[in-house]
Parts: sequence; structure tokens; C-alpha cells
Amino acid sequence: MRTSYAVGVDVGGTRIAAGLVERKGRIVRDSKRLTPQAGPFAVVDAIIDLATDLMSGVQASEIAGIGIGLPAQIDFLKQEVEFCTNLPLAGVDVRSLVMSRTKSEVTIDNDGHMAAVGEARFGAAKGARDFLMVTLGTGVGGGMWVNGEPYRGSRGLGGEIGHTVISLDGPPCPCGGRGHLESYLGRAAIAEKGREAAKTFSGRAILDAAGGSSAGITADAVVLAARGGDNVARKILIEAGEVLGRALVGFVNVLNPRLVCIGGGIGESADFLVERASEVMQAEALAGRRDVKVVQAVLGNDAGILGAAALAFDEHDAREGLHR
Amino acid sequence: MRTSYAVGVDVGGTRIAAGLVERKGRIVRDSKRLTPQAGPFAVVDAIIDLATDLMSGVQASEIAGIGIGLPAQIDFLKQEVEFCTNLPLAGVDVRSLVMSRTKSEVTIDNDGHMAAVGEARFGAAKGARDFLMVTLGTGVGGGMWVNGEPYRGSRGLGGEIGHTVISLDGPPCPCGGRGHLESYLGRAAIAEKGREAAKTFSGRAILDAAGGSSAGITADAVVLAARGGDNVARKILIEAGEVLGRALVGFVNVLNPRLVCIGGGIGESADFLVERASEVMQAEALAGRRDVKVVQAVLGNDAGILGAAALAFDEHDAREGLHR
Repeated sequence: MRTSYAVGVDVGGTRIAAGLVERKGRIVRDSKRLTPQAGPFAVVDAIIDLATDLMSGVQASEIAGIGIGLPAQIDFLKQEVEFCTNLPLAGVDVRSLVMSRTKSEVTIDNDGHMAAVGEARFGAAKGARDFLMVTLGTGVGGGMWVNGEPYRGSRGLGGEIGHTVISLDGPPCPCGGRGHLESYLGRAAIAEKGREAAKTFSGRAILDAAGGSSAGITADAVVLAARGGDNVARKILIEAGEVLGRALVGFVNVLNPRLVCIGGGIGESADFLVERASEVMQAEALAGRRDVKVVQAVLGNDAGILGAAALAFDEHDAREGLHR
Repeated sequence: MRTSYAVGVDVGGTRIAAGLVERKGRIVRDSKRLTPQAGPFAVVDAIIDLATDLMSGVQASEIAGIGIGLPAQIDFLKQEVEFCTNLPLAGVDVRSLVMSRTKSEVTIDNDGHMAAVGEARFGAAKGARDFLMVTLGTGVGGGMWVNGEPYRGSRGLGGEIGHTVISLDGPPCPCGGRGHLESYLGRAAIAEKGREAAKTFSGRAILDAAGGSSAGITADAVVLAARGGDNVARKILIEAGEVLGRALVGFVNVLNPRLVCIGGGIGESADFLVERASEVMQAEALAGRRDVKVVQAVLGNDAGILGAAALAFDEHDAREGLHR
């Protein structure tokens, strides 16, 4: 039976957003709230409340299911949360808890994968059969798209671009490693560069963008100052773009994608960073790879919701033996 | 029509090896010669001579075709040589030249891909649906295996692992980049470390392994000394293994393969290097990835011949509408 709606939920470290989505990718209702910090069940309750509200007044038979993107590594085949840095969800059976309370089918996946599914179906990567998604936000995530489908590897754990070693002697990474992409490109790393710059007079535009408080300087303040024309802030983003570009050299050489799509809050707003990443990748990637296009994602925060809903439709249709 | 034999040709910078191969992977005849250094047509002539000799006395209808692995980047879909560092083959229509002279169907691919196909069908990666092949030789190459098939990306150019940036400020690479895996792990880099060590008394075992000539120290001499128990040579290989392991962190996180197969002349002989690479990858890869097995390839120089022949059978069967 063809259903009309799916619920997409995008769980972040600071905020949970959800939407009721039509098959063609229109969000007909949406809602969001701050992520509860009172333990795993508060997070699960918030997901259930959001989904229940969105589905109220809709016939159960009209709902394909609920897709949930989590900032965690998910064993997709087992539908289990393996590891979660920013929320206490490791080992919590999010899928069963939400299913039993909402009486809907539930599919969980990594948030980077969900954003990739969203951009691939409805956004900047629409129609691409082979692309790489990189999400720059609090963490650095991503997803691979292979032969027109999301690729998750042997256990469904693939796509974790942020913990690629880009420098043998680089700074420590929150995951315990060293010299990882996330330690150069995560919000914390960019904010730290901003605070460092704001110690001198030349960094005053960054300080201004943070409302005058050095402690309040975030990655977004750096992006804001750069967009306002400040060269010090631009330089921070351009240098971050160089690191991203050099990481892309390896992935483009190995994966030979048609397209690299840069999303996440920082990726969508920091044009300088993305432009420089594209230039650096194209100069250093091997001959023949230079026709890879680097684009910015276009769906913003909706990518995760739309991707999660699209996956819920897919899983529903697979259960029912329907084809897209 | 089911054919009985295919010819597999493995073209290296120094040597061309070829074999007449049965469907089940038995090499019934083989032959090799030094790679001519007198220009592209001498290389093509050598390939034709080898293939013709191997097929003599066999009915043409029994031959599925000829597979040729080249140390080059191949646009697999167009069957064109895009770029070739070690031989003057860029732009040479190897496939058509060999086809017109042998009257057999010809398929060309990158040598790393061919080795991956060989190990996947008949060797250390037999039965693996998702694995990563890394070949350590003169260059550092590789291939990805996705959902039980070789993966080549959007233009058939994927798998070039050697030109991954592993160090932002690393040494220059022959390709023009900087800090690439190949600049740490290629034969030239290992030989250079060996020559450096041999400048002092502690490196005498390496010098001995090279017959007493410092200029004659090769990567193989370092491996030989290490296998003989020399700690200085072991240290060189163990440090190279650490660099490889850290590069694998990124690929394992993104690709989540079941298996990483390390082949090529250095990869198959330098146990210390591979063991250390495995340890380092497992310590730094994200939770859940640690069940990835790192194994050494087992087919030696035959991997390229067997993979090339297997691809020739596949292409033949696809043309004829047969299934494996």
C-alpha cells in the first residue's frame, strides 16, 4: 500500500528537529526543541513526543514510518547505536523504544548518512550516482553514495570522514586519535582559531561578531566576520579549506566520485572554506579526477529531516515489496 | 559459449608477466620478460608477443579474451590510459592495438585493481564482499571491493590509495603532491631510509643485504635484513607500517570494509610492516571498526595475472549474456 507521509527526525547534540514529510520531499509540518541533557530516556521521550505531535490527525495507514538520524555510529544492519560521543545513547535501543510507543516502523541511521540521503534525493546531489557527502558542524561527518545508493560498508558503519588522519603529528581529536580532520575543521577548532586571533587588535571583527566576548567566540562568529569582509576571519576559513581540500585528494583519488557535496552548518555558510577546498583538491588530485565538482549543500537543516523521511519511505516500500 | 581459457597480462615498470589461465584460476602456462624501455610501441609489442605465444596451439574459440593490468590510471569505461608515471603509455590505445594483432577481445584496467580482482576471486580476500586492497611496490596502489564487485567510481578511475595526503607538511611525492602515502611507503622511500641507516655502523646488516654497496640498497634489501633479524631494518618497516596504519584509519572509518588485504612485493614480504599497520589502525579507528581484519595477500606476482584473466572471463561472459 502506498503511504503518503513519513516522519523524519534529526537529533543533534543541541537540538532535535522533526518534520512530517510527503513522498516528494515537501515538509508539511515541522517542529523542534532543545536536546534534553537529562540522560538517554529524556532524549528518546523528546523524539517520541515530536513524532507523535507531527502524526496527530493523520491516519496510521497513511504513515510509512519514522526515520531517525542520530549523531552516532550506527550498526545499520542490526539497527543498534554502537558509539555516541555527544549524547549518552550508546547501547540504548532507540528503535524499539520509539516503535513500541508510536506503533510505527522506525529506521535509525547516522546523521551524516541521513543528510547525504536528503541531498541525494532532493538537494544539491540530486541525480548523482557516485558522490561523497561531507558535513561540517560540531563534528565532521559524511556519507558515500555508490552506484546510486547510500553505501555503508560491511556492517553499516561507513562514512565517518571526520576521523581521517590528515597530519601524522597533528593536534589531539576528541575521539582519542591525533591529527584527524575533525581536529582542524570541527566547530571547536575553528572557534579556537577565532579566539586566538581575537587576542590581538587585528582580530577585532571576530570579537565584534561574538558580541565583544572573547569566551563567546564560536565558529559561527568566525563565519559571520568572514562574510562581513574581515580578512583575518577569511584566512581562518581559507586555511581550514586547505586542510579539507587535502583530505579530499585522498578520497577523490580512491572513490572517484562525480561530486563532493559539503553540508552542515559550517559547510553551507562558509563559502570561502568550500571554494578553497575545491581549488586545493583539484590541484593535487591525480590526472583525470579534476572534473570532480565540489558543491555546497542546499537543504540546510532540512537535509537530515528529509533524508530520514526518505529512508523511512524506502524501508516501508522494501517491506511491502514496492519499488521506488 | 563457455570458453576454457583467458590470458592475463601484468605490466610492471620493470617486468611484464603473463599467463594462460583456466576459469578456476589455474595458470597452465606462463611467461615473463623485462619491460622494454624503448617507447610505447615496444611495450605493446612485448604484450602481443607474450599473449600470442601463450595462446599458440589453443583454438581461438576456446579463448575468452585478454586482460591487461597496467601501472596507470585507466578510464575503465572508455578503456583508455589517462595517466602513467612509469611508462610512456598515456594516450596510447593499448586495447585496440592488442586486439587488432591478436584477434582477441581485450580489457585493460589499473594493475592494483587487477591484483584486487585476483585476491578476491582466488586469494586472501576470497568471499569478502567489502574489502580494501593496498598494493605496496614501486608505487602504492589499491582497489576497493564493494558489494562483491570491484568499485571504480564514476569514471572508472578509483582506487588510487597511494596519493592520499597523510601529512600536511610531508615530503614531496613523484606525482607532484606532498605528504602522500607513496612518499612514505613506495620502494624509493624505504630504500632511502635504508641508505640513510647504512651510513652508520648500526646499519651494516642492511648494507650486507645489498651486497656491500650503499648505492645498491633497495627496499628489498631492507626487507631482507629485517627478515634476517636486524633491528634497524625492522624499525624502518615498523615505522612505515605506522604510517600505513594511520592512513587505514581514514579508509576503514569511511568504507567500513570487512577486510584489508595488503599485497604487492613489499606488502607480501614485510610482515613487520603489515602487523604494525594492523595494530595502529585497530587502536585509532572508531569503535566498531576494530573487527576489520588486515591480511597479507597470498598470490604473489600471480595476483595481477589471475585478476586480469578473471576480468577477461567476466567481460566475455557479459558480452555473451552468461552469468558467473
